[in-house]
Amino acid sequence: MQKKIPISIVVGSVSDLKIIEPCIEILKKFSVEYEVSVISAHRTPEKLDLLIETFEKKGTEVIIACAGLSSALPGVIASKTTLPVIGIPSDAGALSGLDALLSISQMPSGVPVACVAIGKTGAINAGLLAVEILSLKDKRLQAKLKKYRAEKSKEIYLQNKKLKTLGLKKFLSSLGKK
Amino acid sequence: MQKKIPISIVVGSVSDLKIIEPCIEILKKFSVEYEVSVISAHRTPEKLDLLIETFEKKGTEVIIACAGLSSALPGVIASKTTLPVIGIPSDAGALSGLDALLSISQMPSGVPVACVAIGKTGAINAGLLAVEILSLKDKRLQAKLKKYRAEKSKEIYLQNKKLKTLGLKKFLSSLGKK
Amino acid sequence: MQKKIPISIVVGSVSDLKIIEPCIEILKKFSVEYEVSVISAHRTPEKLDLLIETFEKKGTEVIIACAGLSSALPGVIASKTTLPVIGIPSDAGALSGLDALLSISQMPSGVPVACVAIGKTGAINAGLLAVEILSLKDKRLQAKLKKYRAEKSKEIYLQNKKLKTLGLKKFLSSLGKK
Amino acid sequence: MQKKIPISIVVGSVSDLKIIEPCIEILKKFSVEYEVSVISAHRTPEKLDLLIETFEKKGTEVIIACAGLSSALPGVIASKTTLPVIGIPSDAGALSGLDALLSISQMPSGVPVACVAIGKTGAINAGLLAVEILSLKDKRLQAKLKKYRAEKSKEIYLQNKKLKTLGLKKFLSSLGKK
Amino acid sequence: MQKKIPISIVVGSVSDLKIIEPCIEILKKFSVEYEVSVISAHRTPEKLDLLIETFEKKGTEVIIACAGLSSALPGVIASKTTLPVIGIPSDAGALSGLDALLSISQMPSGVPVACVAIGKTGAINAGLLAVEILSLKDKRLQAKLKKYRAEKSKEIYLQNKKLKTLGLKKFLSSLGKK
Amino acid sequence: MQKKIPISIVVGSVSDLKIIEPCIEILKKFSVEYEVSVISAHRTPEKLDLLIETFEKKGTEVIIACAGLSSALPGVIASKTTLPVIGIPSDAGALSGLDALLSISQMPSGVPVACVAIGKTGAINAGLLAVEILSLKDKRLQAKLKKYRAEKSKEIYLQNKKLKTLGLKKFLSSLGKK
Amino acid sequence: MQKKIPISIVVGSVSDLKIIEPCIEILKKFSVEYEVSVISAHRTPEKLDLLIETFEKKGTEVIIACAGLSSALPGVIASKTTLPVIGIPSDAGALSGLDALLSISQMPSGVPVACVAIGKTGAINAGLLAVEILSLKDKRLQAKLKKYRAEKSKEIYLQNKKLKTLGLKKFLSSLGKK
Amino acid sequence: MQKKIPISIVVGSVSDLKIIEPCIEILKKFSVEYEVSVISAHRTPEKLDLLIETFEKKGTEVIIACAGLSSALPGVIASKTTLPVIGIPSDAGALSGLDALLSISQMPSGVPVACVAIGKTGAINAGLLAVEILSLKDKRLQAKLKKYRAEKSKEIYLQNKKLKTLGLKKFLSSLGKK
Repeated sequence: MQKKIPISIVVGSVSDLKIIEPCIEILKKFSVEYEVSVISAHRTPEKLDLLIETFEKKGTEVIIACAGLSSALPGVIASKTTLPVIGIPSDAGALSGLDALLSISQMPSGVPVACVAIGKTGAINAGLLAVEILSLKDKRLQAKLKKYRAEKSKEIYLQNKKLKTLGLKKFLSSLGKK
Repeated sequence: MQKKIPISIVVGSVSDLKIIEPCIEILKKFSVEYEVSVISAHRTPEKLDLLIETFEKKGTEVIIACAGLSSALPGVIASKTTLPVIGIPSDAGALSGLDALLSISQMPSGVPVACVAIGKTGAINAGLLAVEILSLKDKRLQAKLKKYRAEKSKEIYLQNKKLKTLGLKKFLSSLGKK
Repeated sequence: MQKKIPISIVVGSVSDLKIIEPCIEILKKFSVEYEVSVISAHRTPEKLDLLIETFEKKGTEVIIACAGLSSALPGVIASKTTLPVIGIPSDAGALSGLDALLSISQMPSGVPVACVAIGKTGAINAGLLAVEILSLKDKRLQAKLKKYRAEKSKEIYLQNKKLKTLGLKKFLSSLGKK
Repeated sequence: MQKKIPISIVVGSVSDLKIIEPCIEILKKFSVEYEVSVISAHRTPEKLDLLIETFEKKGTEVIIACAGLSSALPGVIASKTTLPVIGIPSDAGALSGLDALLSISQMPSGVPVACVAIGKTGAINAGLLAVEILSLKDKRLQAKLKKYRAEKSKEIYLQNKKLKTLGLKKFLSSLGKK
Repeated sequence: MQKKIPISIVVGSVSDLKIIEPCIEILKKFSVEYEVSVISAHRTPEKLDLLIETFEKKGTEVIIACAGLSSALPGVIASKTTLPVIGIPSDAGALSGLDALLSISQMPSGVPVACVAIGKTGAINAGLLAVEILSLKDKRLQAKLKKYRAEKSKEIYLQNKKLKTLGLKKFLSSLGKK
Repeated sequence: MQKKIPISIVVGSVSDLKIIEPCIEILKKFSVEYEVSVISAHRTPEKLDLLIETFEKKGTEVIIACAGLSSALPGVIASKTTLPVIGIPSDAGALSGLDALLSISQMPSGVPVACVAIGKTGAINAGLLAVEILSLKDKRLQAKLKKYRAEKSKEIYLQNKKLKTLGLKKFLSSLGKK
Repeated sequence: MQKKIPISIVVGSVSDLKIIEPCIEILKKFSVEYEVSVISAHRTPEKLDLLIETFEKKGTEVIIACAGLSSALPGVIASKTTLPVIGIPSDAGALSGLDALLSISQMPSGVPVACVAIGKTGAINAGLLAVEILSLKDKRLQAKLKKYRAEKSKEIYLQNKKLKTLGLKKFLSSLGKK
Repeated sequence: MQKKIPISIVVGSVSDLKIIEPCIEILKKFSVEYEVSVISAHRTPEKLDLLIETFEKKGTEVIIACAGLSSALPGVIASKTTLPVIGIPSDAGALSGLDALLSISQMPSGVPVACVAIGKTGAINAGLLAVEILSLKDKRLQAKLKKYRAEKSKEIYLQNKKLKTLGLKKFLSSLGKK
């Protein structure tokens, strides 16, 4: 039997792969199966159709797509599936991702894409948003999400505590040492 | 027993209610239960906490939040729940929603929000995205989404056909008559 | 025998039809055959494939595509043909076409789109650019283009002359009367 | 008895600490007591509530908050206190702080935040603005502010004088030596 | 004895007066004395000096300045006083206030201005921020601010309640009737 | 003998004529001779050359050019003369003149253009800047400029006085009556 | 007999030559003859006229022009020829090419320019768009374009395959090695 | 007798001095006397008044002012003199000079400033524009300006010739060697 792969990550070009690394770390942390593909909406449209055809068999539930510049990839995928699609604007190019952000967020009515922040920050949140969606039918993921939030909260709490103990100067130089 | 209300819509001010009207039409079309609240992240933060506390009992699964200007509402909700939150930038104010779009899309890592387009276009897509998410555990919604897409596709097909038959001039004046 | 239709105009939604009206006037003026279709890259992608398949038979040489917001239409067409594609950003939506302008102009490498100005100004220039391209193998169009330029030049020359004769005040009120 | 700490500085993440360093130098120069905390509006909202509860006891009078991206921190603090809140947009992320600037300045009516410039320039001015506010009930701070202005004025005056004496070339290379 | 006038409002041109009307309503609501002047930083700089000279006698504590376009007024005032200055970007001109927002927020180090939102929203918040600053030495204003917040919170609460009772359609048409 | 016409105003299209009306009022007020031409840098380039050839005979000293969109007119004129050229960005088009402002201000090195504000505000200032330049060799214009400034200053002074006498409400309704 | 040179590339300054290198690689790949000139619309306008006069003799069919900042070059060329002109915005200057992008895309009606993306991405697409235009009367170029697309498609396909085989970590480090 | 110094250059901070270096080279090239001062509109306003008082005695004819961020310096000078003022937006700060460009160009009516490009490009053009203004009463400067233009034109002509001789590859590597 085919293994279920609930998350399908697609990037528009090899240069966007480094952006989605922190997204993958999130999915690993939550033990969510994923696959990564390099497929361009503009340059390999037929490969996209082939990928989309495999979604049913693999049990794909959420697609995460990352592309830069006019960034059509998330929208084109969204036009061919009724699964939720999350779009990450890549910061490639002269406009630092503002073009991609507008292309992904300003989708015309009828074909929704869930836009997150530009670059690696967005990639982390794309991973978390995907897990939140999956958690709606997986109580264990809900618990893990709460644990993750608590950990992050604790991390900041500990940094804050360390800052109070060391004072700003020493705290900042302690960061430098790591 | 409490009726399940899977979608909770929150707007930051009364003036944003007109923006979410087409979102509600989508939810009605898909027969998805929803509730609408006017709660400001900045002006009634404690009401937000009260609302969020009711989510478990009501079976809330997706939150749709709409606000303008610095538009903190979707992010503040997202910081207090691990349910997926969709943010609609309102087009209120001198910058026509560009401020709200950046505030909602550029969330810091750890607290994801799914940003859609500014204004009513975004409201429609927020409704559809919410239905897509719900459809992951409700096969009937999946079928309805496919039917909806087909209808929209047919609508454009019929408009295109009418355009070919009437020619541009007559087609445009036929639009005017409606 | 099938009539040759060298220009295929495609708009992403019925609301963009009014933008392309001046484009069509240009094509009529130059007696260039054209067809107009309403097809959405996102909502009726398969209709787009059907249209593109007819290009060879009809002798299509240039495609003019107009869409707003994330405006994927010109790029998606360009990804499926090696004919030159001209993209007109529609001024629809809260950002007045800046989103569409960036989406159309900032295409990734490998799939070129010729972007023109936002709205009706761009529509006129899309028509003229298409005629310029066709004129490379049609000497009569070259002559007509030169004549058109001369007419436009003359128009401004006559306005300038009238302005000198009437003075600014009277000239401006003479404009109002028309 | 609890020592009075009139200024409470809050940053949204550890990476924003370096931005507020020049703010702290200003507060030290004016011998104004301050505390620094790392608390995220989105990731540790309950820690923020705890901090705010301590304000009365500590005699907090002005809050300075620095965060990047959608930068909800200053506004969320402002929604929970009627003390004046100064917001510093961090220049973190792909948009160099434009997103944070709009999020902080474009607050909805009812919950004011005093926005200053992006990054370290804003941090200096946040410190000075806080001292200006405190000086309304502390004549010594008023005198110090006037002295500070005079010093800054003198500094520029001396630079100008040195520039006149050395000439531009030598003046610029004298800067390099420092 | 001269009456104390803690708030001095200055607008750069007569056309900005309508923007500061809601600021004045706030000050009236809090029974805070104010004066309004039309003085241009660029066109009547010497009048500005005269006004500033009266501040000590009048007991001015906070200045609120509103101007559009390159909007130098708040900064020029700030350069001549160590009292806190709040700047409201006017939405005048082709860029809808984005120019004024950047001019007011991006002040160079040494001369702080507290920037609020563009237009009437910013005017309300400028009034509230001024009251917050005054409240640091006036317990009654602190109490009034808390009451004001509670009222605004209640207003939204009642709107929310009415919305729940009437439903969206009826609620929206009830708004239309007022 | 040819009458001297020190100012040559050129607009890129008839629709820009209304923008330069207040510029002409300034020139009339200062009794400076001017001429107005409608010449497009792109559509009637040879007419521009003809105009420029007449400058020496007419004693042209300053050129004021107004155009919208990509607004090449001021720069093209500047490339063909060493007389000072002032550029007014027209607010025509979907981007409200931001495109024209960047095109006029961001001239490459070697060919200076003096850019003023978008639209009618810029037109007034273009007129004044031209008069300032002419005043360098015409003492009477210097005196008139000082008188103009004094008048404008007085106007604001009187408005301010009237505002103080009437109060804001009555003052604003007195404006409405005019 | 004069050799036919269908493509004429013009850059506004020597510093833009590096941007058009990938454009030239495309033209070489398609064995299309080209010439490159450094001519400034603003600084050497008469050289531009001389170049344009040679077009007929050389059989020039498409002009590719690259310039930065206010980027008048493509438009000025377009105003002097009825051949299709493609404009590449250079990313020179403080605004990273946004100024050039608006100057090239927002051409006034009557003088079309085909705008492509900022910088080297745009240069590649300018080359391909020129080849697409030439291919309308050269079947061999049509075939080559299809082959090029297929190659690019295959490249991505192979990268995708390698990614699947190696996994993300190894794939990314294999990229580093090249 | 006091030496005439027709050009007075003022920068807002020491860090802007490097920007005006190419401006000074232009003035030296044209043998135009100048002075350079570091004076801040916001931090040393009274020094500015002192400088302006010296203008009559020194025969100052044009002021060139450079400042960054909210960049009030050119406008404040312009408000205190009827001499022509040229403003150079510094590229300092997170927004790369866009803020300074808008502050300088979008001056309110009545107080004109001639805005040039951001940074060193603008500095060169500020110098040339000042010389153009001075040339209106100095025929020798007119001749020198024409010679300068011819030289610049020749420089590009020679680069173009060298490019044609060497070919792009060799030409680019010859640039690298210098």
